[in-house]
Amino acid sequence: MYPVTPHTKISRSAKRGSYDEETIYQILDEGLFCHIAYVLDGQPMMIPTGYCRIGNKIYIHGSVGSHFMRSIADGRRVCLTVSFVDGLVLARSAFSHSVNYRSVVLFSPATVVTDEQERWDALEAFTNHVIPGRWEEIRQPNTKEMKATMVISFTIEEASAKIRTGGPNDDEEDYELSVWAGVLPLKLQAQAPITDPKMVHDIPVPDCVIGYRK
Amino acid sequence: MYPVTPHTKISRSAKRGSYDEETIYQILDEGLFCHIAYVLDGQPMMIPTGYCRIGNKIYIHGSVGSHFMRSIADGRRVCLTVSFVDGLVLARSAFSHSVNYRSVVLFSPATVVTDEQERWDALEAFTNHVIPGRWEEIRQPNTKEMKATMVISFTIEEASAKIRTGGPNDDEEDYELSVWAGVLPLKLQAQAPITDPKMVHDIPVPDCVIGYRK
Repeated sequence: MYPVTPHTKISRSAKRGSYDEETIYQILDEGLFCHIAYVLDGQPMMIPTGYCRIGNKIYIHGSVGSHFMRSIADGRRVCLTVSFVDGLVLARSAFSHSVNYRSVVLFSPATVVTDEQERWDALEAFTNHVIPGRWEEIRQPNTKEMKATMVISFTIEEASAKIRTGGPNDDEEDYELSVWAGVLPLKLQAQAPITDPKMVHDIPVPDCVIGYRK
Repeated sequence: MYPVTPHTKISRSAKRGSYDEETIYQILDEGLFCHIAYVLDGQPMMIPTGYCRIGNKIYIHGSVGSHFMRSIADGRRVCLTVSFVDGLVLARSAFSHSVNYRSVVLFSPATVVTDEQERWDALEAFTNHVIPGRWEEIRQPNTKEMKATMVISFTIEEASAKIRTGGPNDDEEDYELSVWAGVLPLKLQAQAPITDPKMVHDIPVPDCVIGYRK
């Protein structure tokens, strides 16, 4: 369990909240991309980016020339969010409409990773987080590419999850209304893969692409 | 065209960037949810929430008791992002892997909307942004519900879009490698609707739900 802090204490619909590691890790592992907020000269800034989790750390990477990476490389504190929508909750009244979602909000200072093995492990985990098994079938980074890449880790210190599931909760007197109500589930789904027209060899679409789901 | 400011100037892959209203509006209108970053006691905070656009304004709403809504109600400046992933770009090298995406980042001070007509219009536009046509078939808000709801607008002052499309760009010498490369398109898709078991009348699933796509 993560500690409940003033930053992570859930005030609205508190029963949807959780501070449990397993619940939080599951959402982090299912999400593809996160949003990272930070403060620059007193101004809120935010960037969407890929990530992966190893143990209690989140890793991101980017170019050593990236303005964002350089801005937080000083150990700046960030707020990192992973969220996805599982469905639209369509109630009888506008007011009771809602969304089924899962989200994690966490707070952590940024740490530039300098250990070469940890950097390598993070890039491997990142690739296989986005598409499991891909790392093993591609050309892995060379020295020049590793030098051009900055890896940053966030040790999860404060985190909470928030989850809504189930159908609409209408006001008692609204159930009599002639309005269809229910849930429209939404899912991020892979479409048919598009083979690069610049392929030199005739290579079948690999299993990690054909069977993709996230 | 929005002005290019120090906050919105795109430094990495600048050719993917745009400050054009139409490009930015199209992404805002296609997205379902946004992330809003703000600064509270020097700390970066962020929340995912629904939104809609009317003209050059973004509207969000929430409970008058919401900690987030109350925090930014003082006119605080926010960074608001809408982003979605259109596909995984699977290259021959790990380094050249990428993502096809569309995103908008904008900056604006928060304004609490007090005009009753503008508040109503925002809630209507929000409902129909999430699911077009739904507003007309449900029970619209009553006085008590309107009183419990805070509507906040953000006039878009600084904004930029960033878009990546197309296949992988590998290093010249990597094209000879025996690696499948291409794009795996991803799409948020509606699944079969689940009718609320508490339905009193036998009402068919409405067109706005059956034909749903975002």
